[in-house]
Amino acid sequence: AMAAERGLAMATCTAPVNIAVIKYWGKRDTDLILPINSSLSVTLHQDQLKTTTTAAASRDFTEDRLWLNGKEADVGHPRVQACLREVRRLARKRRGGGEDAAALSLSYKIHIASENDFPTAAGLASSAAGYACLVSALARLYGLEEELSEVARRGSGSACRSMFGGFVQWQRGERPDGTDSLALQVAPETHWPELRVLVLVVSGEKKPVGSTAGMQTSVETSPLLKHRAEVVVPERLAQMMQHIQDRDFEGFGQLAMRDSNQFHATCLDTFPPIFYLTDVSRHIIALAHRYNAHHGHTKVAYTFDAGPNAVIFALADTVAEFVEVLRRCFPPATNGDQFVRGLPVGSAALSPELAAAVVTEP
Amino acid sequence: AMAAERGLAMATCTAPVNIAVIKYWGKRDTDLILPINSSLSVTLHQDQLKTTTTAAASRDFTEDRLWLNGKEADVGHPRVQACLREVRRLARKRRGGGEDAAALSLSYKIHIASENDFPTAAGLASSAAGYACLVSALARLYGLEEELSEVARRGSGSACRSMFGGFVQWQRGERPDGTDSLALQVAPETHWPELRVLVLVVSGEKKPVGSTAGMQTSVETSPLLKHRAEVVVPERLAQMMQHIQDRDFEGFGQLAMRDSNQFHATCLDTFPPIFYLTDVSRHIIALAHRYNAHHGHTKVAYTFDAGPNAVIFALADTVAEFVEVLRRCFPPATNGDQFVRGLPVGSAALSPELAAAVVTEP
Repeated sequence: AMAAERGLAMATCTAPVNIAVIKYWGKRDTDLILPINSSLSVTLHQDQLKTTTTAAASRDFTEDRLWLNGKEADVGHPRVQACLREVRRLARKRRGGGEDAAALSLSYKIHIASENDFPTAAGLASSAAGYACLVSALARLYGLEEELSEVARRGSGSACRSMFGGFVQWQRGERPDGTDSLALQVAPETHWPELRVLVLVVSGEKKPVGSTAGMQTSVETSPLLKHRAEVVVPERLAQMMQHIQDRDFEGFGQLAMRDSNQFHATCLDTFPPIFYLTDVSRHIIALAHRYNAHHGHTKVAYTFDAGPNAVIFALADTVAEFVEVLRRCFPPATNGDQFVRGLPVGSAALSPELAAAVVTEP
Repeated sequence: AMAAERGLAMATCTAPVNIAVIKYWGKRDTDLILPINSSLSVTLHQDQLKTTTTAAASRDFTEDRLWLNGKEADVGHPRVQACLREVRRLARKRRGGGEDAAALSLSYKIHIASENDFPTAAGLASSAAGYACLVSALARLYGLEEELSEVARRGSGSACRSMFGGFVQWQRGERPDGTDSLALQVAPETHWPELRVLVLVVSGEKKPVGSTAGMQTSVETSPLLKHRAEVVVPERLAQMMQHIQDRDFEGFGQLAMRDSNQFHATCLDTFPPIFYLTDVSRHIIALAHRYNAHHGHTKVAYTFDAGPNAVIFALADTVAEFVEVLRRCFPPATNGDQFVRGLPVGSAALSPELAAAVVTEP
């Protein structure tokens, strides 16, 4: 308020990355960003991966401007504009048309700076955290308190899921105007505290085909995607909610792996085909299956978004052993001490049987 | 006949490889080898890739024996036994129960030797040519003249398609006993003499998951395969027959690529997922799309069976240029003069525009 009185206001927010376990791929409305199927994700802790965005408004600013990771970017991007327009529209509505002299003027230009602490556009859902963060920062700037997943969705579909922690469903919705295509928290993070997420960065490079273009080509050309959206996902969504409800890692992990594979299958069924998985991704998949087979049940589950990087779900008691398996299969070379970041991982010795059954040539 | 009188008879046959453009993947009856969908293939000339099988019967042989590529193999394999049993049953039926003294005794033991002039079990349909050849050699040995695709099918499903040249449909059939699950020639090879096939051997290694086990796992676990078999393939089969009828390479090539991709998509939708394509396969796919994009229409079409090796369809006037593109993208190293085998390929210079647009780092 002090700042606003002097004609300057600032707000800073952070937003988390979310990892879909029932995948979103394909829009039924590309302008409003309405999906062809519902999806379900796990929101990661912000301690490790997050976006931080600061939005400032001032009567002294002469134009809207945007910086991403320290580099100026195009504030005129239609999706950034859609978020700005929607937040301002809601702010205007809230003030009921009457101009509150003390409130921040909606006509002030804004400056926005956003930073990720992880590689951008490498299939790590950076746009989800980015747009969720943008919308949250703008909402705070303008003093909005309502649920804004519908606005975040206009930036990037999966951004709506990053507006909540824990387990989040983005429901497809039925209305053509998208007002029922919202994120809903299925369970808070406290519901399943033992669940851990490992992000295996195979490559920090930009992906060859962006999600927006890729999913549109898939919608237009893949007969399997249509069947997945209409028939397979509704069944899987109900199953996944039940597995989360029951904290059933066997069911959760199996279905997460199947759904990741099916998403990549529809990319391959796209024409021309889209490949996000590389030979390294495939080695991680095979490793996870060998590891689970050795233990006789599902101890780790992989999922891959639109890129080669693996996300591994496991329960807390499995992490140290599986990280040791990863170290043995993919020995750190030059980047030794950078191999593991994040929460401290205990050390674990592998039994000779486990090593023999699971570890292959680096 | 001379040999038969002395108690020894021999017959030698060759059989061709066939390459499916509408793929077979999945059985509805694993014993009778009845497929979940019809398929359609192009039979290759035998000048380049073939199997040669000699079958001999003698009263002096004390047991049935089998050699594959010079190494003795298990003649008791259920599929070899199924072919032997069916051929003998037909021979017995033909003789009407009455034993012809001059005819080769059906009770003689047989020796069979089979050779491929290409890598076995590397996704080059070696079992198709192998079982087609086995059945043909046995039929000649026993003097059978009828159409035997139904018997070849009992050895390996796709073997029934290698019983004909040109363009061949293996119709799914409806009967539980499989008597209508037969191969039919759609058009003879003379119908489209300009069509050429290039086999790009990415790896001669054995595939990690055999077709028989792989397709069974797919039938049990892939929801997308079920949809493909029931809904997608019937439409595509009719389209492909029309493209062949019209000698429409654009339509033929596009659909062949889409169907290859969809088959591999269903492998990825299998649980645990099956990967036959490698990073090298993917580079060939991307190269084909760049090459076609440069020319503005479909000049080459890829298809991949259950392995990383690519089969490329092209019309005769495209082969020299595309082979030159391949030479530039995958320069022959140690195996220089073995790089191209088969029909003579003329030399072609690449235009700078083509080279710039299509050739990437080796």
